[in-house]
Amino acid sequence: MGTVSADISMSLDGYIAGPNDIPEQGLGEGGERLHEWLYNLESWRRPHGLSGGDSENPANELMDGLLKHSGAIIVGRRMFDLAGEWGDEPPFHMPVFVLTHRPRETMEKRGTTFHFVTDGIESALRQAKTAAGEKNVAVGGGAQTIQQFLAHGLLDELQIHLVPVLLGDGRRLFEPGPPMEFEIARVLETPGVVHLTFRVVQ
Amino acid sequence: MGTVSADISMSLDGYIAGPNDIPEQGLGEGGERLHEWLYNLESWRRPHGLSGGDSENPANELMDGLLKHSGAIIVGRRMFDLAGEWGDEPPFHMPVFVLTHRPRETMEKRGTTFHFVTDGIESALRQAKTAAGEKNVAVGGGAQTIQQFLAHGLLDELQIHLVPVLLGDGRRLFEPGPPMEFEIARVLETPGVVHLTFRVVQ
Repeated sequence: MGTVSADISMSLDGYIAGPNDIPEQGLGEGGERLHEWLYNLESWRRPHGLSGGDSENPANELMDGLLKHSGAIIVGRRMFDLAGEWGDEPPFHMPVFVLTHRPRETMEKRGTTFHFVTDGIESALRQAKTAAGEKNVAVGGGAQTIQQFLAHGLLDELQIHLVPVLLGDGRRLFEPGPPMEFEIARVLETPGVVHLTFRVVQ
Repeated sequence: MGTVSADISMSLDGYIAGPNDIPEQGLGEGGERLHEWLYNLESWRRPHGLSGGDSENPANELMDGLLKHSGAIIVGRRMFDLAGEWGDEPPFHMPVFVLTHRPRETMEKRGTTFHFVTDGIESALRQAKTAAGEKNVAVGGGAQTIQQFLAHGLLDELQIHLVPVLLGDGRRLFEPGPPMEFEIARVLETPGVVHLTFRVVQ
């Protein structure tokens, strides 16, 4: 049985996107800075149909493992919209479950199937676990989706890629909510980013 | 010439104190959790007049070095009040410069001298640097004091002791402000806490 793990890049001041994160702006003003560490990794470029990239950086193996060991992904509808529905060639090549209030037909795009789930996160997780089989379920964001999974005790792990920058404003990963304890499962520093994996203490 | 370095414990959701951090409550509801990793360290207990404690934990050397290499400390008036003026035996044994709007006479308590600075952070820093000589100046907090030092470009380093807990509410280290870049200077994991040192990119 795989784990359920959320994975997201966050600034030192706690933002996962800059101000004005609307579909035309993706991650908002300054928000792209949070993903810069990814763009030259071979394991990021390959699923995006790009050749080359750094395969020596330990972050490459980290991201490669994340995709390899995941069998399904859950994302919020807002993130799905901000990513422009991931265009014609989404990088996932596995089932993606999109949390939404508006029913929509399953959509297949070159190996990535988008399922639209209207009956809540528990249903999405059940479906994602079935699809993933022995593999992990990745919760890809955004902030609100991760908050919901945490609040309902549905996450095993939370992996934060901490980028040493203050965005100064934007969308926070953590809004006021219930107190919660974690264990530190792993700390890895790679160029320009600290990868922090926390295990949820149930 | 020493460095100017801020040093503070922060929760994963960005708080340095819980809600209701008033003098009777110190670090606010749940806020003491952020300093738990300190209380059993030999290098924390000794200056507090307590015997024993863990001297094997690498966090012990870290905190020992911090005190040893600092020649003066700057704190905000609010923190000074919340700490109950550090009682009769303050742990610092060096000059402490308290930022305040209200003039007050210099106060000496068993090797720790409190100077009250009413003409702003730049003046406090000048005085602290003079007092520290070749040693470092430590900016001890609270949040507002660290924010001011960052905003005025007066910090060389920012050390955050990241505690894997969500406080859920309280006083944030980072309020909305100008964007800023850091370099990762050091990452150290010790039991129950990740020590992150960032160098300010000028």
